[in-house]
Amino acid sequence: MKVAMLGSGFIARFYADCLHSQRRPDRIVSVYSRNLEHAKRFAADYSFDHFTDQLVEAVNHKDVEVVIISLPNHLHEVAVQACVKAKKHVLCTKPLGRTTEEAKRMLDMVEDAGIFGGYLEDLCYTPKFLKSLANIKAGSIGKVLWAKSREAHSGPHSEWFWNKEMSGGGAMIDLACHCVQISRSFIGKAVRPVEVMCWSATQVHPIEAEDHAIGLVKYANGAIGQFEVSWAFRGGMDLRDEVMGTEGSIWINGFMRTGFEMYSSGKGGYVAEKAETNKGWVFPVGDEVHDLGYNNMFTDMFDAIEQNREPLETFYDGYVVNAILDAAFRSAETRQWAPVQIEDWRYEEHTTEIENYASYNEEYYLVKEEVLPNGQGRIILKHKTTGKVVQRDLGSK
Amino acid sequence: MKVAMLGSGFIARFYADCLHSQRRPDRIVSVYSRNLEHAKRFAADYSFDHFTDQLVEAVNHKDVEVVIISLPNHLHEVAVQACVKAKKHVLCTKPLGRTTEEAKRMLDMVEDAGIFGGYLEDLCYTPKFLKSLANIKAGSIGKVLWAKSREAHSGPHSEWFWNKEMSGGGAMIDLACHCVQISRSFIGKAVRPVEVMCWSATQVHPIEAEDHAIGLVKYANGAIGQFEVSWAFRGGMDLRDEVMGTEGSIWINGFMRTGFEMYSSGKGGYVAEKAETNKGWVFPVGDEVHDLGYNNMFTDMFDAIEQNREPLETFYDGYVVNAILDAAFRSAETRQWAPVQIEDWRYEEHTTEIENYASYNEEYYLVKEEVLPNGQGRIILKHKTTGKVVQRDLGSK
Amino acid sequence: MKVAMLGSGFIARFYADCLHSQRRPDRIVSVYSRNLEHAKRFAADYSFDHFTDQLVEAVNHKDVEVVIISLPNHLHEVAVQACVKAKKHVLCTKPLGRTTEEAKRMLDMVEDAGIFGGYLEDLCYTPKFLKSLANIKAGSIGKVLWAKSREAHSGPHSEWFWNKEMSGGGAMIDLACHCVQISRSFIGKAVRPVEVMCWSATQVHPIEAEDHAIGLVKYANGAIGQFEVSWAFRGGMDLRDEVMGTEGSIWINGFMRTGFEMYSSGKGGYVAEKAETNKGWVFPVGDEVHDLGYNNMFTDMFDAIEQNREPLETFYDGYVVNAILDAAFRSAETRQWAPVQIEDWRYEEHTTEIENYASYNEEYYLVKEEVLPNGQGRIILKHKTTGKVVQRDLGSK
Amino acid sequence: MKVAMLGSGFIARFYADCLHSQRRPDRIVSVYSRNLEHAKRFAADYSFDHFTDQLVEAVNHKDVEVVIISLPNHLHEVAVQACVKAKKHVLCTKPLGRTTEEAKRMLDMVEDAGIFGGYLEDLCYTPKFLKSLANIKAGSIGKVLWAKSREAHSGPHSEWFWNKEMSGGGAMIDLACHCVQISRSFIGKAVRPVEVMCWSATQVHPIEAEDHAIGLVKYANGAIGQFEVSWAFRGGMDLRDEVMGTEGSIWINGFMRTGFEMYSSGKGGYVAEKAETNKGWVFPVGDEVHDLGYNNMFTDMFDAIEQNREPLETFYDGYVVNAILDAAFRSAETRQWAPVQIEDWRYEEHTTEIENYASYNEEYYLVKEEVLPNGQGRIILKHKTTGKVVQRDLGSK
Repeated sequence: MKVAMLGSGFIARFYADCLHSQRRPDRIVSVYSRNLEHAKRFAADYSFDHFTDQLVEAVNHKDVEVVIISLPNHLHEVAVQACVKAKKHVLCTKPLGRTTEEAKRMLDMVEDAGIFGGYLEDLCYTPKFLKSLANIKAGSIGKVLWAKSREAHSGPHSEWFWNKEMSGGGAMIDLACHCVQISRSFIGKAVRPVEVMCWSATQVHPIEAEDHAIGLVKYANGAIGQFEVSWAFRGGMDLRDEVMGTEGSIWINGFMRTGFEMYSSGKGGYVAEKAETNKGWVFPVGDEVHDLGYNNMFTDMFDAIEQNREPLETFYDGYVVNAILDAAFRSAETRQWAPVQIEDWRYEEHTTEIENYASYNEEYYLVKEEVLPNGQGRIILKHKTTGKVVQRDLGSK
Repeated sequence: MKVAMLGSGFIARFYADCLHSQRRPDRIVSVYSRNLEHAKRFAADYSFDHFTDQLVEAVNHKDVEVVIISLPNHLHEVAVQACVKAKKHVLCTKPLGRTTEEAKRMLDMVEDAGIFGGYLEDLCYTPKFLKSLANIKAGSIGKVLWAKSREAHSGPHSEWFWNKEMSGGGAMIDLACHCVQISRSFIGKAVRPVEVMCWSATQVHPIEAEDHAIGLVKYANGAIGQFEVSWAFRGGMDLRDEVMGTEGSIWINGFMRTGFEMYSSGKGGYVAEKAETNKGWVFPVGDEVHDLGYNNMFTDMFDAIEQNREPLETFYDGYVVNAILDAAFRSAETRQWAPVQIEDWRYEEHTTEIENYASYNEEYYLVKEEVLPNGQGRIILKHKTTGKVVQRDLGSK
Repeated sequence: MKVAMLGSGFIARFYADCLHSQRRPDRIVSVYSRNLEHAKRFAADYSFDHFTDQLVEAVNHKDVEVVIISLPNHLHEVAVQACVKAKKHVLCTKPLGRTTEEAKRMLDMVEDAGIFGGYLEDLCYTPKFLKSLANIKAGSIGKVLWAKSREAHSGPHSEWFWNKEMSGGGAMIDLACHCVQISRSFIGKAVRPVEVMCWSATQVHPIEAEDHAIGLVKYANGAIGQFEVSWAFRGGMDLRDEVMGTEGSIWINGFMRTGFEMYSSGKGGYVAEKAETNKGWVFPVGDEVHDLGYNNMFTDMFDAIEQNREPLETFYDGYVVNAILDAAFRSAETRQWAPVQIEDWRYEEHTTEIENYASYNEEYYLVKEEVLPNGQGRIILKHKTTGKVVQRDLGSK
Repeated sequence: MKVAMLGSGFIARFYADCLHSQRRPDRIVSVYSRNLEHAKRFAADYSFDHFTDQLVEAVNHKDVEVVIISLPNHLHEVAVQACVKAKKHVLCTKPLGRTTEEAKRMLDMVEDAGIFGGYLEDLCYTPKFLKSLANIKAGSIGKVLWAKSREAHSGPHSEWFWNKEMSGGGAMIDLACHCVQISRSFIGKAVRPVEVMCWSATQVHPIEAEDHAIGLVKYANGAIGQFEVSWAFRGGMDLRDEVMGTEGSIWINGFMRTGFEMYSSGKGGYVAEKAETNKGWVFPVGDEVHDLGYNNMFTDMFDAIEQNREPLETFYDGYVVNAILDAAFRSAETRQWAPVQIEDWRYEEHTTEIENYASYNEEYYLVKEEVLPNGQGRIILKHKTTGKVVQRDLGSK
């Protein structure tokens, strides 16, 4: 497919590196940047002709079939408007909006126009995420009780991130958007997020927005999503997810501990990406673009457009994420659990609570069964009506 | 020193294994158990003569110099009373009390009697904890911003734990007592814990108490302690701590990933400790007793008695921990941040906030300095009075 | 490009999964299998029409531009002959031949015919390998002293592997071909492999060929390549490389410890790939096809054909690998270092020895410089002419 | 017990730190150093009175019951002679001798005198080693096929190590003594080591002895011990063991990856031990003394003396290790497998070969059984008389 790229910065280059690699047939044919020089350099680097500092010109370029928005957060809505007007399919980087309202307007516009709206949530396309999701759906870890996602590093690259008006927030808007959607996917997209408790603070950087936040998202089935985000982490990019289920657990390390370790005295020339240093032990990833999910993401997006189906991550997902984040912001301010306000909820309203009491026999629940270090078995039971807890020693195993 | 052991269960045996190992000179001379058979077997196993089912008889045994309380939580206070009456030094397992009030009564009794009161918080004596603490005090990671401690497994061994009246709670009273004190130690014991936000639930087991809880403890200097505890974790014993500081980070895995991995087809006979299985990949620890801190703990306790000094972990520490836990229980119930009520606070009342705004020059704060993938340097600055954020590209590095 | 696939088994499916994924434009248009049913099923699974049990028919199919050989080892040569005759480009799976002579004949045929000969050595295309190679070339770890590669699992899937006549050997021919080329690449392809010492044995399986082997390959510059291969490993697929350089080290874990860990009680349905079990801790990889190098490999191969350049791995590389393996087989038999016989060596004949003696001053070499635990510096020097070793304490650092 | 310490350097201080810790009752009462100032400082640091620069004076000190030799290798024999003469029990650091002959003389002397001779092989007392040994003896991993031990760092602290005459060799004598005994213990001390193949080189340091060596030790039952040692490793101290058995595998990381990771910007003051740097990611161990085996080692030694039994590691073990190392030196020189010459072999002469051919039924051996990715079972069989290999597909599992 023929693509217009809106933006020419860090994330636009990441996208382009992916799109123009591994013999992929899709091609960028136009780029827009507020800075014409940047646009020109981008077009040269990725070997195509058309560049412009007029957003509408790129979107309306006659060859363009699909538009990728890689702009600062405050420019997403206006960019989507241009796509809607031009009836071009649109893929928008995360977060969708700065607020739920903004996201909702974008969602509605796109749906009303009948164009394709893909939400570029790359971390829900990483190989480890996708395989975890497949395992969870296949029942490998039972019912999900808790899904935590953590993203922390030393702060973003571009100045607009540090401006709350442009970005919509700090580490929460930048990073928790990933974490919230990862947890939500593991718990189940059809399960309604009910309320959020969040702590946030500006601990290190001289900014208005938060540079550290921790939040809990309670779902209708009793499961808990947890996010931990920070722009104040030292040591590289900490990208980890954990899931607890009734039958198992999953631990994912997405970036800094992936089975690739290098020690260098620093006399060599090369610098591993995103490491704070090129001396000592560094932990590169093998293929950053693939390991961060870009390949799978663009494959799903373009395939979905061609097959006229929904992608894994839609504008609707982006809207739900903004709704959860807004609840988190309110909670941080009010110091209370804040309800998640989703006026346009499209899945089941009520979900059965996770209910796992294991029945031992007619009289008792099974609390625990175990083998002691001396090889003896033991069970702990609870009477179903009296509630009395008893312990029984079994024979040696 | 001569020791009376109160209790003969799981934890009493762990303590005894440590005390009677590695050529240590201290010796258990008496054991009390509510079950005389158990007491008898314990005395035989550890090669001493005196056993009894009368608590006071063990405490008052003429040779006994120090008493170790390894009893269910609801029996701690009465045991301490017996020690106070007998003027014998006392070491009490964790948690000190089931409530702040209970802990405070024990603390007061011991201090009024002038006997030694050691709090057996083993996880504040593990080799990794002690070396981390030394590093933090030496400034290796700067000022601590966040200290998380996680303990999760499939539930405790004895039936009384599952009875809320006897235990005082569920996973929080059993496990968060460790986590709270680990975080508090890293942040600094002299820094006042101010308030707690906690979520808890009974997700899996048929019990009244919580089997899963997550809490945030805010300290007077702005640092955050976090605890994650569960009796519903599958896969073994998950024991991890993490610390973020302004100059560095610490990651500790205390149990399941310590550089010791074994795969077994299961045809062999041995079962690795606390693993849920003896088949597949298991992750034993080298020396459970030492790695969990028992050796360092008893060395500190007995040395402290002989040197007439305070140990690292005192009854006062146990009291503060109970106060934080009680705030957590209240928060889980009220769904609000709950103040930590410590009537007997012995350190500084107010602490300077962490304040780390790096000044770049007279006009600007430094937000971020970095080297981009293309080798170019970049700084992001914020004007000290206007607040405007600007970005400046530096030469190539 | 249009591809004929020769073979329809395990490795052919792996290749096909890669070729027909991620929006790649290259397409399989014909498949050959000795078993017509298998060919038919393969064609159906990958959505194309032409299948046959006549090798020549697939190769000669009018649309076919390039042929992929995914056949048992004893059929590689005859397949290459067919490609040469049809003047179709050919990509051959590893090992190239069963012996040096067989490989040499294939190399010569292809070069004489002027067709493209790509050697499908996937493990020299993994993301971690490629980034390591880039780092080594950039000098990050200085001069390479030792490069070890290990591959071990419980044995191959198909029966022909276990037949020495068909395969050419056991674990060495199956696995050491990877290891030898990995080490050689890190040490430098232009450096001549000189001699090999190898131990091999049949420890577990009832076969003629070896199921365990360890070998050392000495290179002209003094560097050592090491391979460790086994069909008797329990626990999954052990795929690790290590490199020691004068300025640093690299550790790669390619399969079982890549930051993805899952515990399952076994009650779920899914089985993680190549794990011996679906219970307990299992260690899936995120994207097996990509992490094993297939994506990068086929991208390089097809790009190279289109750009009329050599790929990273050529038939010549396959020939050198066979020459090293043959030396290893001879060494295992003669119990002596065996010379590597490469009649057609195309790089430098002699290489400067690694020489790193650090001069301290005119009189002394520097043996070692270090800071002792007490903070004191110390240097150990060796006199350049007398050879006397002396130690000098420096001030505290 | 009362101890004389011969030597006051790096290893003597490690020993003393252990002996005078954790409430141990044994006490150093005399120290000998060739440098009187060092002896004096050592006595002061460890709080005892008697120090001397006369070796015999320390050994003969009236209170001394047991002597610990922590001297350079070339002084071990003369020190043992003094103990024998004084009829004092003796514990000697590793390696026992510089050659088999030297070790044999020490062994004979001690046995003739009827005194206790303990071999201070600490790495056969680490918690992970001991637990692995217990698992192997209990059958957890079946019969041992291969046991590898690796020790590598940037070189030793004292100048005498770098002098071949004093030390007896380079990295092999310094480090492979550990590795050889670790492998031998896992394979079984009663199994005779038969022959050795070894490569060694001086790759980096300006010394006569080797700074890098790799060796294979073949045992009478067909098992293979492997050692990898280097004084040219960059990145810290690499201490790893691996074992392959017919029913399982063991992986031990003894030092640099033990679940303790710290990142520091370097602005803090502390330096983690043996790390090459205090900046970036460092990997301290929790309790170096305990994790390296000193606590368990001295407990076993003193207990053995008091209980009049053999310790786990005896002078005889030291002698066998020297015999294996001498074979390795000869092999490196002759470039052939060199027989291990043990004139005084005290265990079984011949050992049954590992024999594990699994019978499938009367006609066939089982080569392999597996479940394919598609869920289908498959077995590979070999006919017991014809040797023909066949493959049978089983139903889906």
